[in-house]
Amino acid sequence: MPTDTPRRRIEIYDTTLRDGTQGIGVALSLRDKLRITEHLDALGVDYVEGGYPLSNPKDVAYFEQVRDLDLKHARVCAFGMTRRRGIPPEDDQGMQALVASGAPVITIVGKTWDLHVDEVLRVDREENLDMIRESVAFCAASGAEVTYDAEHFFDGYRANPQYAVETMRAALAGGATRLVLCDTNGGSLPAWVVEAIDGLTAALGDGYRQLVDAAGGLGIHVHNDGGLAVANSLAAVEAGCVQVQGTINGIGERCGNVDLTTVAANLRVKLGYDCLLPDSLRRLTETSRYVYETANMNYVSGQPYVGSGAFAHKGGMHVHAVQRVAHSYEHVDPETVGNTRRILVSELSGASNIAATLGKKFDIEADKEVQRRVLQRVQDLEHEGYQFEAAQASFELLLHGVLGTRPTFWSLDHYRCVILKRDGETAVTEAIVKMKVGSMLEHRVAEGDGPVNALDGALRKCLTPHFADLVHVHLRDYRVRVVNPTAESAAKVRVLAEFAVVPNGDDADARPIRTFTTVGVNENIVDASWEAITEAFAYHLIESKVTA
Amino acid sequence: MPTDTPRRRIEIYDTTLRDGTQGIGVALSLRDKLRITEHLDALGVDYVEGGYPLSNPKDVAYFEQVRDLDLKHARVCAFGMTRRRGIPPEDDQGMQALVASGAPVITIVGKTWDLHVDEVLRVDREENLDMIRESVAFCAASGAEVTYDAEHFFDGYRANPQYAVETMRAALAGGATRLVLCDTNGGSLPAWVVEAIDGLTAALGDGYRQLVDAAGGLGIHVHNDGGLAVANSLAAVEAGCVQVQGTINGIGERCGNVDLTTVAANLRVKLGYDCLLPDSLRRLTETSRYVYETANMNYVSGQPYVGSGAFAHKGGMHVHAVQRVAHSYEHVDPETVGNTRRILVSELSGASNIAATLGKKFDIEADKEVQRRVLQRVQDLEHEGYQFEAAQASFELLLHGVLGTRPTFWSLDHYRCVILKRDGETAVTEAIVKMKVGSMLEHRVAEGDGPVNALDGALRKCLTPHFADLVHVHLRDYRVRVVNPTAESAAKVRVLAEFAVVPNGDDADARPIRTFTTVGVNENIVDASWEAITEAFAYHLIESKVTA
Repeated sequence: MPTDTPRRRIEIYDTTLRDGTQGIGVALSLRDKLRITEHLDALGVDYVEGGYPLSNPKDVAYFEQVRDLDLKHARVCAFGMTRRRGIPPEDDQGMQALVASGAPVITIVGKTWDLHVDEVLRVDREENLDMIRESVAFCAASGAEVTYDAEHFFDGYRANPQYAVETMRAALAGGATRLVLCDTNGGSLPAWVVEAIDGLTAALGDGYRQLVDAAGGLGIHVHNDGGLAVANSLAAVEAGCVQVQGTINGIGERCGNVDLTTVAANLRVKLGYDCLLPDSLRRLTETSRYVYETANMNYVSGQPYVGSGAFAHKGGMHVHAVQRVAHSYEHVDPETVGNTRRILVSELSGASNIAATLGKKFDIEADKEVQRRVLQRVQDLEHEGYQFEAAQASFELLLHGVLGTRPTFWSLDHYRCVILKRDGETAVTEAIVKMKVGSMLEHRVAEGDGPVNALDGALRKCLTPHFADLVHVHLRDYRVRVVNPTAESAAKVRVLAEFAVVPNGDDADARPIRTFTTVGVNENIVDASWEAITEAFAYHLIESKVTA
Repeated sequence: MPTDTPRRRIEIYDTTLRDGTQGIGVALSLRDKLRITEHLDALGVDYVEGGYPLSNPKDVAYFEQVRDLDLKHARVCAFGMTRRRGIPPEDDQGMQALVASGAPVITIVGKTWDLHVDEVLRVDREENLDMIRESVAFCAASGAEVTYDAEHFFDGYRANPQYAVETMRAALAGGATRLVLCDTNGGSLPAWVVEAIDGLTAALGDGYRQLVDAAGGLGIHVHNDGGLAVANSLAAVEAGCVQVQGTINGIGERCGNVDLTTVAANLRVKLGYDCLLPDSLRRLTETSRYVYETANMNYVSGQPYVGSGAFAHKGGMHVHAVQRVAHSYEHVDPETVGNTRRILVSELSGASNIAATLGKKFDIEADKEVQRRVLQRVQDLEHEGYQFEAAQASFELLLHGVLGTRPTFWSLDHYRCVILKRDGETAVTEAIVKMKVGSMLEHRVAEGDGPVNALDGALRKCLTPHFADLVHVHLRDYRVRVVNPTAESAAKVRVLAEFAVVPNGDDADARPIRTFTTVGVNENIVDASWEAITEAFAYHLIESKVTA
C-alpha cells in the first residue's frame, strides 16, 4: 500500500510513437507524433522514443522538429539496431542516422537469444557480442545517453543463461546506462521474470552494482501475449528495475505492449512508487483518450483506470452501494486518474441510478415522483426492446418527455423509401420525406447508399434550411440486432446509432467535438433507423439550445 | 513449464451468462444463453453459471430449458444471494427460487467485508454470519452442490482478517464445498492475493484440510480493474485454489471479469495444469468468437491467444523471422488454441481451421491447391468485410464456388422494395421480386413488417412452387454491424442471418432440426440482407440434395 513517503523513482519510457505504431491499423502523421510528444511531456513521461531515424523520412523529420518543442521534462530517444555484421559502426548507415538524429538518448536493440543469433540473424555468437559492445560505444562516444534493449531477454535467458548474460556484459562494456530486458514474444510469467532478473543481477555482480551506483539500472519492456504484461512489469520493478517501457493504451504489435496508463496508476496508487509528476496522474484519462483520438482508434470501454466503463455501475444494488460508500465497488477514486463515475440506466437499475446520472442536469435530484415516473417509462420501453445504457441521448429525450420540456421541431407527413436492385448492378435507393417544419411544408428527395443514408439525406434537406447547426451532426456508427420476440409481439429490431458532432460540417470524418448515441426500436428496420436519426437531430437541437 | 504429466486439475467455472451480462451493452436472449451453454460444454468448462433465477423470468425459463440440453460435461449453476435478514431461508423468495431452479449446483454470494456488512447491507455482523451459514445449509439440504462466493474477500481480509475468516467458517459450517474468493472491486495485486490465501488456509486449519480431503477447495473470482485479473487468477491457483471463475472474453462489469480464454490457455500451455478437456484447447478461439457474435460485440484484435491479431505480424523483419523459425516471434503455436498466424502485409486471414473441419465433407483434405484457392478467396472476402467464423453456411457455399459444384437455382431480374410511413401509422413495406427459376419467369409481390421480411416473402413466392422444401427454412435471428471502412472504400454493413430448419413448415417457431448462418456484406443494408437470405435458400437446397 502507498505510504506517505513515496518509494524510489521509476522512470516511464514511452514507445507509443515507435513500437506502438507496429500495431494493426496504427498510423501516425508527423504532426500527430509531435503533439503526442507534448502530451507525454505534460504527463511527466521521462523518455519519449520518437522513432527509428533510418526507417523512413517521417522519423528523420520528427527528430529535426522535436527540437523546437518546449519540452519541460521528457527526453527524446532515437531507436535503432546494432550495426550490421563485419563493418565498423562508423560505416553503418543505421549508426550514422542515430547519431545524426541529435537525440539526447539513443536506444540500441540487440540479440540476446542464441536461437536468434544462430538461425534468424545467422551471425557468429562472438560477432554478435562485438556488434552490441561497439554499437553502444559508438553512440555513447557521440555524447548521447545510451539505453540497451535486450530483445528476447527472457526467452534467451531460459534457453542459454550464460550467453544472455554475455550480451548484457557487452552492452555494459560499451557504456550503456540502462539495460532493458525485453519480453519480445510476450509469453513470460511473472515468476520467470523475477527469476531471470535475480539471475542476471547475480551474474553481473560488481558490474550491476557499479551501474546502480552511477544512477543507471535495469529496465523492463514487455508485450501482452499472455495477458500478463502489467503483472510482469510490476514484478520487474519489485525485483529492482528502475525503468518501465511501454505504450499509451498498450497499442502495439500482436497483443500490444504493456499499457503505461495501467502501469503508472498501479505503481503510484497501489505500490507507492514515485513516477510521472506529482500532480499529473489526473491527466492519465485525458492522455489515453488523446492518443486514441489521434490514432483514430476506438476507446476500450473496459480499460483499467482510464476506460469510459472503468467506473460504470449497472446493477441497482451496486449503484445503491456506491452512493452509500464510494469505494464499496470502486478500487480507487476515479478522480485520481482523471476519470469519472458513470451510472448506467437499464432494467437492472433503480430510481437511484436515474437521480445519480442526470439528477443535476434536469434538477430532479430531490423529486422522487418524477424519478418514479422516469423509471416506469424506462421499464416499459425496455420491455418493448429499447436499451438506454448505451444510448444516453435517447434517455435524456425520455426525461424531457416525462418533464414536458421537449420542444416539437417538426411533424412528419410521410416518408417513402424505394430500393431497386437489378441483377448485376448496384442497388439504387431513393428516399422522399414530407414534413412540416415550423409553418413550412418541406417535401424533399435524396439518393443514398442504402435506406438509412437516403433517409438521412432527405431529412437533412428538410431540416437544414431551418436548423443550420445540423450540418455538424453525422452518423458515425450503426448496429442492429433482433430483439427477442415476446409471446405477445412479433420480432423487433433495435438500432443503436452513434453520431459525431464535428467542428466543420463539411468534414464528416473530422475529429468530433463530442459523440452521442440514440436508439430506435421497431418491427421495421427502416423505421427503427428513422427513429434513431430523428431522435439524434432533436437531441442535438435541444443541446444547442435551439427552440422550436 | 508444462511437463508430460499434467499437474492437478483446475476447475473452470464460467459466469459469462450471469456476471458477464453486467457488462455495458451485453444483453443475451434465452436462446443465446442456451447456445452458449452448449459451446461451453463442448469446450470442457466444468461449471456454467446460468443466471439468478429470482431476478427475471428469462433466467427462470433458462433453468427449465437447460435441462433439455444434452450436456456432456458441464454442470449448471444457479446464482443467488444469502437470505434476507431476520427470516428463515425457507421463507425467503430468493432461496426458494434457487432450489426451485433444479440446478445441480447452487452458488450463494455473501458479504465478507465488515464495511459492507455495517454500512451497505447494514445488518448485525453476527446476523450476517447466520445468513451465510443458514443459506448455504438450506441449499445443501436440497441436495445441490453448494459453492460459496465470498464477495470482496480480499478487501475484507485486508480490512478485518478475523471477521473475513469467520464468514468463511460460516460457509464451511453450512456445507459449502467450494469457497470462492472474490476480488469484486478488481484492484488487488498478486502478492495481496497470495498473502490472503495463505492467511485464510492457515486460519481455517483443520477445516481447510477436511475440505480438500473431501475433494472440495478454494476458488478464485477476480475482476480486472487493475489490469491484473489474469495474474491474480494464476497466483491464486499456484497458492492452492482448485477453481477459477471468469467469463469468456472477460466480458463483465466495469473492466470486466477475468478472461477465461487467457487463463485456461496459460494454465495448460504455460503452467501444465489439467483443465478443460484433453483436446478442447483448440476450440478456444472459436468459442471466443462465438460469444462475441452472439452478444453482438466486436472482436478485440489484441486479445491474448484468441484475438485476430494475436499472431499477426506486421514488421517485415518479424515476418521474415517467423518464416525462418516459427517461435521466433510467437510465444506459442497459434494452432494450440485454434488460432492462426496472420501476415498483415498480405492480410493473411484464418480459415484454415474451417478448411480442416470441412476437408472430409468436400474431399479436399489432400488437395493443397484447392485449399490454397479457398484461403485466397476467404482472404479477399474478409478484406471486403465478410466474416466466416460465425457463418459456416456461407463458407460452404464459397467452397462449392471454388470447386465449381454450386448449382444455379435461379437468376434475378430485379427486386424493388418500397417502405411508406405516414405519421401516426405503422410503416408499410412492399417488395417485388422478378426472377427466372428454371425456365419460368416469376414476378411476385409481398408485404412484410420491414424490407427483410417483405423480400423474404416475395422471394418465397417465386421459389416455393419450384422448391417446396423451402417452407421449412425460416429466418430466426438477424444482426447488422458497420464494417470499418478502409482507406479505399465507403462504410459497409455486415449482416449475419441465422436460419432454422423446422419439421413443419407452417410452424416457424417450432424447435428446429438444425440451424445455420449466412453472411452478406454491402453498402446497402437491404442488399446485404438479400444476399444473406438468398445464400441461405441456396445452402438449404444444396444440403437437401436438390438439383437445379
